Amino acid sequence: MCTLEKRGDIYILTLTGSDEHRLNPTLVDSIRSALRRVRAEPASPSSALVTIAEGKFFSNGFDLAWAHSSQPRLELMSAKLQLLVKELISLPMPTIAAVTGHASAAGMILALSHDYVLMRKDRGFLYMSELDIGLVLPDWFMVLLKCKIGDAKVRSEIILTAAKLTAEMAAVRGVVHSAHVGAEETVEAAIRLGQELVKRGWDGNVYGKNRMVVLNEVLEKIGTVTGEAKTVSKL
Amino acid sequence: MCTLEKRGDIYILTLTGSDEHRLNPTLVDSIRSALRRVRAEPASPSSALVTIAEGKFFSNGFDLAWAHSSQPRLELMSAKLQLLVKELISLPMPTIAAVTGHASAAGMILALSHDYVLMRKDRGFLYMSELDIGLVLPDWFMVLLKCKIGDAKVRSEIILTAAKLTAEMAAVRGVVHSAHVGAEETVEAAIRLGQELVKRGWDGNVYGKNRMVVLNEVLEKIGTVTGEAKTVSKL
Amino acid sequence: MCTLEKRGDIYILTLTGSDEHRLNPTLVDSIRSALRRVRAEPASPSSALVTIAEGKFFSNGFDLAWAHSSQPRLELMSAKLQLLVKELISLPMPTIAAVTGHASAAGMILALSHDYVLMRKDRGFLYMSELDIGLVLPDWFMVLLKCKIGDAKVRSEIILTAAKLTAEMAAVRGVVHSAHVGAEETVEAAIRLGQELVKRGWDGNVYGKNRMVVLNEVLEKIGTVTGEAKTVSKL
Repeated sequence: MCTLEKRGDIYILTLTGSDEHRLNPTLVDSIRSALRRVRAEPASPSSALVTIAEGKFFSNGFDLAWAHSSQPRLELMSAKLQLLVKELISLPMPTIAAVTGHASAAGMILALSHDYVLMRKDRGFLYMSELDIGLVLPDWFMVLLKCKIGDAKVRSEIILTAAKLTAEMAAVRGVVHSAHVGAEETVEAAIRLGQELVKRGWDGNVYGKNRMVVLNEVLEKIGTVTGEAKTVSKL
Repeated sequence: MCTLEKRGDIYILTLTGSDEHRLNPTLVDSIRSALRRVRAEPASPSSALVTIAEGKFFSNGFDLAWAHSSQPRLELMSAKLQLLVKELISLPMPTIAAVTGHASAAGMILALSHDYVLMRKDRGFLYMSELDIGLVLPDWFMVLLKCKIGDAKVRSEIILTAAKLTAEMAAVRGVVHSAHVGAEETVEAAIRLGQELVKRGWDGNVYGKNRMVVLNEVLEKIGTVTGEAKTVSKL
Repeated sequence: MCTLEKRGDIYILTLTGSDEHRLNPTLVDSIRSALRRVRAEPASPSSALVTIAEGKFFSNGFDLAWAHSSQPRLELMSAKLQLLVKELISLPMPTIAAVTGHASAAGMILALSHDYVLMRKDRGFLYMSELDIGLVLPDWFMVLLKCKIGDAKVRSEIILTAAKLTAEMAAVRGVVHSAHVGAEETVEAAIRLGQELVKRGWDGNVYGKNRMVVLNEVLEKIGTVTGEAKTVSKL
């Protein structure tokens, strides 16, 4: 599922295996468990989290095959992802996604839930596929996209034309922070960025709380939705 | 008032006549009636709507002469336009405004309520005239402008300097999608864009529902205001 | 504390002295008193307000030494600044900040509460220092920043990297309106801009009400917070 490694001050969370890293409850719980271990360690000295994924996919979104159109399974899967995003938003350190494969739908949301998204140029798309596959974007995805992408035309291009954005397209549009030659270079740049942020010596708890202010609207939206989803997951 | 024509997969809604296309209840109801006919047709195969206007004006805004400062008439006019905007937001197909004349105040809001705004370069302005003529922008106009124009400085320029934007100014600022040589070229480009969108083969109902997510805040705002306005229109 | 002078149609509000212009209740009340005098004068003919500050600081933020970590003092200080920002938002004329020194934290918020921010190039930073000094940004600061800065990446750079923005950096990022050679040039440009706006002949009350629509979310947020703060200041 995923592994957690510490290199110097940097936590490296790796989605392992060459599958699509579909966000079913098992994978999401595995990531959440890794984040809990990160959180359990002392917040100082400063650290940073870099999330990477093996294979051709960063994540291809929800595991629709697992849910096979069962409403309770879909809601459980959504509730789990919301918990994960909430935990990323309050994580007491900067977070960086090194996107070296496709990040689609919920997988793109997972990438954008990090403070920085670095992406390889030679392969892979950011892609909200919902319109193409006959689905409707959850409201809370939209709230996150609004907090992360300021340009209304770009949001519309992503959602209402289901545009497939390469790293260079995404960088020009302000959707990712930088585009890099290949997979290795992307991961290296992510770790280097993490090290630079660590050098600033910020208090991790203060960092996390400021991020919670920046993404306040996402937390508020998730709060309401998770309430409903919890009921479902009790069934 | 307005006519509806189908060319291939494209619905063409034309505001007819060379007047200012002031948005009094009669014109708005005429447009709404045309949209209802569009909606009544089968959603598949895919289609798109192109709205055009004859004469020198796309629309010069509310019909203030008709309302002659009567509060119930103003509220009725506002409520009607809100219903129209709501119907455009849920319309099960992409919508394109071909702006070949001035679009002022509520007329600019009508244009921006389409997914795409194409505009001619050689004539015509987008212009929120309220400040110049001593009026205050309705709150729901602002919510729509925030959803459609990401750049805070541009919104401020539009509302707090009552800037008259030509097509080229509006394109640079991300307020319209593209600027075209003349009226004919603008309409042709709009139809061509419609045809390209149709080729994507999206399910119209899914498209409409995703747009409702994108413009969720406008629908929420209109929901509350329309409530009041309905009371008025019952008087 | 501060002086108010009228040159032609322009009100000039000056934070006097070469100190840091820390926003304790005394300074904030002094500014509010000046704004009340501006407001008491007839709104027509049109006028504009230019705010300038002597010395090396526009304002270095809240007076944390005065508050010396006393919760009631901190809340009183915050409540006072909210009242000032609210009064600036409803002021019946365009407002321009000529930033010729550092504007940090609450001092940056004060600058951005003006319609236009003009800044000198050769000295001074805009700087949200919270992360660097172990503080968490108040929610209402964030609402104002979202209304004023459309670019999500720039907001993140400001808050989650505590970036120090020179005038040129801030102009490129759309955080200020223009960058000027030195202090004198900045003030002159601010007055010239004020005069140009005055020439438009807008009704000041209409201007103020339209600005209240543009910054509606800030007013709503301040409304709720001030409620609590009032209780505190009664203690």
